[in-house]
Amino acid sequence: MKAYIRKVQYYETDMMGVTHHANYIHWMEEARVDFMDQLGFPYTRMEAEGVSSPVIAVSCEYKKPCTFGDEITVTVTVKSFSNVRLAIAYEMQNQKGETVCLASSEHTFLNREGRIVSIKRTMPEFCKAVENVMREGDE
Amino acid sequence: MKAYIRKVQYYETDMMGVTHHANYIHWMEEARVDFMDQLGFPYTRMEAEGVSSPVIAVSCEYKKPCTFGDEITVTVTVKSFSNVRLAIAYEMQNQKGETVCLASSEHTFLNREGRIVSIKRTMPEFCKAVENVMREGDE
Amino acid sequence: MKAYIRKVQYYETDMMGVTHHANYIHWMEEARVDFMDQLGFPYTRMEAEGVSSPVIAVSCEYKKPCTFGDEITVTVTVKSFSNVRLAIAYEMQNQKGETVCLASSEHTFLNREGRIVSIKRTMPEFCKAVENVMREGDE
Amino acid sequence: MKAYIRKVQYYETDMMGVTHHANYIHWMEEARVDFMDQLGFPYTRMEAEGVSSPVIAVSCEYKKPCTFGDEITVTVTVKSFSNVRLAIAYEMQNQKGETVCLASSEHTFLNREGRIVSIKRTMPEFCKAVENVMREGDE
Repeated sequence: MKAYIRKVQYYETDMMGVTHHANYIHWMEEARVDFMDQLGFPYTRMEAEGVSSPVIAVSCEYKKPCTFGDEITVTVTVKSFSNVRLAIAYEMQNQKGETVCLASSEHTFLNREGRIVSIKRTMPEFCKAVENVMREGDE
Repeated sequence: MKAYIRKVQYYETDMMGVTHHANYIHWMEEARVDFMDQLGFPYTRMEAEGVSSPVIAVSCEYKKPCTFGDEITVTVTVKSFSNVRLAIAYEMQNQKGETVCLASSEHTFLNREGRIVSIKRTMPEFCKAVENVMREGDE
Repeated sequence: MKAYIRKVQYYETDMMGVTHHANYIHWMEEARVDFMDQLGFPYTRMEAEGVSSPVIAVSCEYKKPCTFGDEITVTVTVKSFSNVRLAIAYEMQNQKGETVCLASSEHTFLNREGRIVSIKRTMPEFCKAVENVMREGDE
Repeated sequence: MKAYIRKVQYYETDMMGVTHHANYIHWMEEARVDFMDQLGFPYTRMEAEGVSSPVIAVSCEYKKPCTFGDEITVTVTVKSFSNVRLAIAYEMQNQKGETVCLASSEHTFLNREGRIVSIKRTMPEFCKAVENVMREGDE
């Protein structure tokens, strides 16, 4: 999988002169969506097939500030994947290869009624794709 | 009607040290929602009754910067109101009474199928409330 | 200390119909700024005196969705406070008293040159105020 | 000049299921920054040389909703350019070539003390680049 690359925008900076910390949560989502596109299973398709995947937890450790014009590379890794929960890790680096942020998110899977679904039963194809990526990461 | 008061947040500033210009669009929405609450016809009720009111145009003139900690007073005025369109003006002042932004927005009214509705027929109570406020403004 | 109260805005919702998860990071900041105001030591004063307090980590556990019109009460608690680090916990409840989000943030203290400062030496008055609040919380 | 292309993000949608109208202001900025990069005069360079270019007015006409996954092409045109003011027009189209938004912004030029500068005297190279682009547009 290719990492997701994203320029820091002016509107993402704050008066400290650096990227405001809330924006990294947006970049995680962008990278996750791009990851699903690369997986061949876009998030739009998941929602079209009746499953949404809300975020149930996030965490960020800010290692180094970045600012307008910096180019951030976000590497997405699946940390764990069960029938009802997906955990993702993110490493964000600037154009010099310095780590600016380490982050993680956890997701569950809901049907249109808002009830948790067994993703392995509901979307076997998606699960196979995720497991393939995890296997490649191990090699 | 009481004006809407809002403190500028840190995350709304940018590296120029002032409120980023996109945030004023948020404040317009906040003031508009508060205006409808005061009208006795909250926007949640309008949506619950099957009508949404998308923004079809906005404009802002930025008169003076403001920044974190400033207290902004947003005065909402109905500029015009027809069966299919509502035009609103906003004046935003800082805690010294200086105008920081003059803005306007235009809205139409849609049913759940996304078709334009005659608001006077669909929501006569809302229309009466708006017209009352317009009349008071004229006095 | 009084909890911080905040209505969910329309622009904070996403197409899932609920508050987008990144916005809770904003509410944490708003509540923290309000907490410092109540402490008698506003963040504007800290920055005016040459100290900034960047966020070095955040985490959120999303317990229950909330949406436009909900009124969120954010309770701020100082978890730990040393010479170079401040850890804060946040509990966010909706108008029914249900917990929607549990969160935490960690902060360090920098001088104008971007170097970590001993906050106890630089701002003894601020430290005393924080310690008082922590003591009250223990009682 | 190449148009700027941007996918709509999930966090940019609202509970109406479409892009929240405030986000178009962000896309205008992104496209403007990209335009300056293509001009060979990045905004970071302008600020490094002591000139900032605040937005003094924006306007948007929303023609058609767009939503998560749509790919928006933003075409930037310089409408007018004087010694103290730059006016830019934006046309935003979705992946089907349908116009979703027509917008404009106006900018002035300030020095580090916040005073308006004659951009033609301060940054002749930038002015020449802008004028070249305007001429090409006329052909």
